[in-house]
Amino acid sequence: MNPQQQQIGILLFAHGARDSRWAEPFQRVAARLQDQAPELPLELAFLEFMTPDLTEAARRLAARGATSISVVPLFLGQGGHLRSGLPELVARAMAQLPGVRIEVGAAAGEDPGVVAALAQYALQCAAATRP
Amino acid sequence: MNPQQQQIGILLFAHGARDSRWAEPFQRVAARLQDQAPELPLELAFLEFMTPDLTEAARRLAARGATSISVVPLFLGQGGHLRSGLPELVARAMAQLPGVRIEVGAAAGEDPGVVAALAQYALQCAAATRP
Repeated sequence: MNPQQQQIGILLFAHGARDSRWAEPFQRVAARLQDQAPELPLELAFLEFMTPDLTEAARRLAARGATSISVVPLFLGQGGHLRSGLPELVARAMAQLPGVRIEVGAAAGEDPGVVAALAQYALQCAAATRP
Repeated sequence: MNPQQQQIGILLFAHGARDSRWAEPFQRVAARLQDQAPELPLELAFLEFMTPDLTEAARRLAARGATSISVVPLFLGQGGHLRSGLPELVARAMAQLPGVRIEVGAAAGEDPGVVAALAQYALQCAAATRP
């Protein structure tokens, strides 16, 4: 890679859980994204219970040449995890990765397209319910 | 309402948090759904920290004539809250509302349309990131 060239990486950030099946929707999001943008460095990281954590995922993206990382919180609600926990994790990762910029997007639940898809899914559930 | 007629109700079910702003995306899903299906009895309920709880929301739907309630878990991952907690809450609500059937859908994160919207949102975040 040309060292002059700037490279964006995506870091999908989810909560994590003890049950490994919990990660499946997030892995599907990552797989779909990688299909749509095969050249884009992409990692899925977790707040707790699962690995990698945010710093490790950012390190992997940097190792693949990412100089600017977009953290995408795959959370519906914007609670304490995002309002206080995430900025702290990002500051820690940036301190360990000089020269890499890390920006954090809004929770996915703030996106109108995600809200529309959730409403559509609820309508499908209602339609599938026997009256 | 004709007592012979069967009526479906939708119960959107989210986690809840201490921060009231956390509920906003779920309220937007409810508002959008109500726009699309104004006649459909609809309630938003929470597992913890926020009200109403599942039983109270089901009671309100039943009071509006719902005889069959579709619970739509607005969760991305399908963890312990849904695998064990939710069936217990549903059993408790059904015990208190004889004659009302309550069915539980899969977590919203299992829906391909929701996965696609999340992937699309992540791409938008990456596009908005300065390289």
